[in-house]
Amino acid sequence: MGIRIFVTGGTFDKEYNEIDGTLYFKDTHLSEILELARCRVGVHIRTLMMIDSLEMNDEDRAMILDNCRKAKEDQIVITHGTDTMETTARLLGGAALSKTIVLTGAMIPYKFGSSDGLFNLGSALALVQTLPPGVYVAMNGRYYTWDNVRKNRNTGRFEELR
Amino acid sequence: MGIRIFVTGGTFDKEYNEIDGTLYFKDTHLSEILELARCRVGVHIRTLMMIDSLEMNDEDRAMILDNCRKAKEDQIVITHGTDTMETTARLLGGAALSKTIVLTGAMIPYKFGSSDGLFNLGSALALVQTLPPGVYVAMNGRYYTWDNVRKNRNTGRFEELR
Amino acid sequence: MGIRIFVTGGTFDKEYNEIDGTLYFKDTHLSEILELARCRVGVHIRTLMMIDSLEMNDEDRAMILDNCRKAKEDQIVITHGTDTMETTARLLGGAALSKTIVLTGAMIPYKFGSSDGLFNLGSALALVQTLPPGVYVAMNGRYYTWDNVRKNRNTGRFEELR
Amino acid sequence: MGIRIFVTGGTFDKEYNEIDGTLYFKDTHLSEILELARCRVGVHIRTLMMIDSLEMNDEDRAMILDNCRKAKEDQIVITHGTDTMETTARLLGGAALSKTIVLTGAMIPYKFGSSDGLFNLGSALALVQTLPPGVYVAMNGRYYTWDNVRKNRNTGRFEELR
Repeated sequence: MGIRIFVTGGTFDKEYNEIDGTLYFKDTHLSEILELARCRVGVHIRTLMMIDSLEMNDEDRAMILDNCRKAKEDQIVITHGTDTMETTARLLGGAALSKTIVLTGAMIPYKFGSSDGLFNLGSALALVQTLPPGVYVAMNGRYYTWDNVRKNRNTGRFEELR
Repeated sequence: MGIRIFVTGGTFDKEYNEIDGTLYFKDTHLSEILELARCRVGVHIRTLMMIDSLEMNDEDRAMILDNCRKAKEDQIVITHGTDTMETTARLLGGAALSKTIVLTGAMIPYKFGSSDGLFNLGSALALVQTLPPGVYVAMNGRYYTWDNVRKNRNTGRFEELR
Repeated sequence: MGIRIFVTGGTFDKEYNEIDGTLYFKDTHLSEILELARCRVGVHIRTLMMIDSLEMNDEDRAMILDNCRKAKEDQIVITHGTDTMETTARLLGGAALSKTIVLTGAMIPYKFGSSDGLFNLGSALALVQTLPPGVYVAMNGRYYTWDNVRKNRNTGRFEELR
Repeated sequence: MGIRIFVTGGTFDKEYNEIDGTLYFKDTHLSEILELARCRVGVHIRTLMMIDSLEMNDEDRAMILDNCRKAKEDQIVITHGTDTMETTARLLGGAALSKTIVLTGAMIPYKFGSSDGLFNLGSALALVQTLPPGVYVAMNGRYYTWDNVRKNRNTGRFEELR
């Protein structure tokens, strides 16, 4: 069956616009990253949106949930901006699908060469194959359940609520 | 308690000698890699040896097993050359320690910038936190149990025996 | 005597702030770049400012000119943001110092790994050793005299005025 | 007319064979490097050979000279292994063509991500546009005339003979 990867954007996929010096989205780098990683596990990648997670609204999240629900696969990885990853995780977690869903992202764009994204994606793909059904956030070597995670706005790190 | 990481060398840590154009070992890059990955999980790194796994002998492997046995941690990641990773895995697996041990490595040296090592290490650290006691090989998005894995010499890929 | 390098900031030295996703300045990467380049020519680096060249004002430019005038070296490279590089070049060119001064910069921050800055710096250091006294802009394999250069705002490329 | 680039191989273009851990040649990375550098100067690239310069023989060198002689361009850059760059330079220099010829190379393969090659190529392309007819070696921020250069085998650095 393989693993379903839903791409939603986030720092992971940001590019640098050399004309005006801003960061923007073009295409996802997921395929390129998996090739670099010599990834041998079967994945199906689908881009749902390419946005900064600060701009993700309720409709976007409902669409992500809908795609998770309808996916044939029981193992789903979602690349997502870190700023509101916890919000999407809670929506998905509350839906209690009988699937293993792992959200992951990056603090540094993949294109900037020294990204944590490659490491996080390695973690997420491992976790989605080993964790029981549920919704999880995988960042920087750790994983969190959907109802016990937040991003600390000051440190930029993920942490447990309690 | 945290995770114990044993470094044994392998392609992961190879360097390029610009004077004579050969590959060699200096220090491990594990700390640097974990910093790049913004890794937040507690790890204790110990370098056991820095060798090409083709040069690893029975004594070296006995020493690795001994270190796994004596480690206080129940979660152990071993970075290892890919060529004889399966041999070390079998020795460790046969010892049936009640610990989760994950061997990982890289096809491309970390220093060459486009390494699969960062991805594999992310996988290995996730797997060691989620898999039941046993010995596993984690490479390129997949994981294998110690008694069902080999490296295909022609393709360079890991695969199941049966 | 060696070559004097004045650092003024620009895209060359920009960093990515992973907490808020903005670009900012910390320290210059010039020493690190020259080490990577295994540069064997004697250079003296001095940071005059670390700013986006869109924020460079007349006072800043007067200070750069003053430093060029007072420098003991006859060969001066200035790293500079590309947006107003032509303005600084004109001020320096009009002063008609009997020195070879080469301004250079980058379209992509060095830290993003795939920078043109390393290439441009190689050019600038070569040009400052070979061109007669005067003020030049060195970008992307070409060089321009101070009174015949502008950055095309639409394409992001440097071009001659006539 | 533009600049002619002759590719002969060398460390510059070496690749890492992940199956057997050796270094080898496939295709040149010159076009890719010039794209990364956003190079705006017109160049014509031609691959003459793809070899380690330790394996370059008299016939190979005669062929390089012949190509320099017949090239329509007066500005020629040659990428070359560093080990015998001085030998080729002497052959070309002795021929006294009325062209500017600059040999350059790298201590670290471009594919390894932290190469001096990008920097050296920036230098070489600048020098070929500014130096008078003659044959030069451009390495690591410096340039040498063909009759006054050697690679120090111990340090790996280029230096003047006298």
